[in-house]
Amino acid sequence: MTETLDVTDRTRLRRSRERGHFDRDTINTILDAQPMCSVGYIIDGRPFVTPTLQWREGNHVYWHGSSASRALRNSRDAEVSLSVAILDGFVLARSGMHHSVNSRSVTLFGTAVKVENPDEKLAKLRRFVEGLFPGRYERLRPDHAQDLKATMVLGMEISEGSAKIREGGPIDEEPDYALPIWAGVIPVHTQVGAPIADSRNIEGVPIPEHVTAFRL
Amino acid sequence: MTETLDVTDRTRLRRSRERGHFDRDTINTILDAQPMCSVGYIIDGRPFVTPTLQWREGNHVYWHGSSASRALRNSRDAEVSLSVAILDGFVLARSGMHHSVNSRSVTLFGTAVKVENPDEKLAKLRRFVEGLFPGRYERLRPDHAQDLKATMVLGMEISEGSAKIREGGPIDEEPDYALPIWAGVIPVHTQVGAPIADSRNIEGVPIPEHVTAFRL
Repeated sequence: MTETLDVTDRTRLRRSRERGHFDRDTINTILDAQPMCSVGYIIDGRPFVTPTLQWREGNHVYWHGSSASRALRNSRDAEVSLSVAILDGFVLARSGMHHSVNSRSVTLFGTAVKVENPDEKLAKLRRFVEGLFPGRYERLRPDHAQDLKATMVLGMEISEGSAKIREGGPIDEEPDYALPIWAGVIPVHTQVGAPIADSRNIEGVPIPEHVTAFRL
Repeated sequence: MTETLDVTDRTRLRRSRERGHFDRDTINTILDAQPMCSVGYIIDGRPFVTPTLQWREGNHVYWHGSSASRALRNSRDAEVSLSVAILDGFVLARSGMHHSVNSRSVTLFGTAVKVENPDEKLAKLRRFVEGLFPGRYERLRPDHAQDLKATMVLGMEISEGSAKIREGGPIDEEPDYALPIWAGVIPVHTQVGAPIADSRNIEGVPIPEHVTAFRL
């Protein structure tokens, strides 16, 4: 793992330094907590960022899309950066410059490799769905070969990158604690709502536990 | 505005096409709904993605960080891509390949320009805090000149980019609607929790309305 490469918030930087280096378990926990990610790549010398979903399997992270996707075609066999960021709260300090956010983030670097073998590709996609909704895949209509062909799966080894975590209250300059200013944290978190059944569901089809028990 | 450049989900692509092109109001609404963003940039020919916070003022989007930040120093006067993505729900279909997510996202492209004038820089930072917490800045300890010096603000004109929105239930293949499979949407949204006062707040300092009324 390389050192943290860039931090755009001085408070987080200070915290990061206090915490020292982040291990692979920390990185894995953040990746597993939030499938939404941003993949950065280069086309014709210009930087692109595309939001997509990632999933982890052991020491690799995967993402997918249409085989026709410009993003995927240009990321394949190319260097990419993949970032997951979770906002945990707003940190309100006693001066403007010490305002911050509590967050957990991971940024990975590496070469995106296409999963070529069709069986392996299907296994990865199953794992993606099963990771979110255990037991769902075997209940689904089996995949058509052409669907699988139309889908590209890219993967990257988790070998270079870093995690950053900022938590807790504001860190103000010592004299500022005497000021009569409300400081603190406004927490935010992702709330899972009540499932909405599709209007075309067969009457009486039971709602599976992987839906009712779903948590992020 | 250019056309949507890349879509990693066929369902979203289909939806995007159904909806035609997205106007500036749609882009602005998504930017204003979520400060967390990802900035993509290039260092030594390699793509980097850094999560940070953005705020909009008219036809520009801004982000900031330490003047020493490698991310910011390398983004300045360089081409960047800035992406905001909001996850609204998981879409469970009757086949694996038609699973999707409901989401709103914006990806912008342009050249990051440093806000050089100190007064203008301060005005931008005030606007950032005020945009989230109206009325807060005037109550804070005034900024130290060195704090302002240590902070870099980058901005980019909103002139090239696109928005993508996917909403609603699954879109399955017609024969699959006859299958006894539960399909639907698991909505997710960002929940604002109860504010946590800093333990070093002066006793009796009132909690301001910009905290109690905070919504994302």
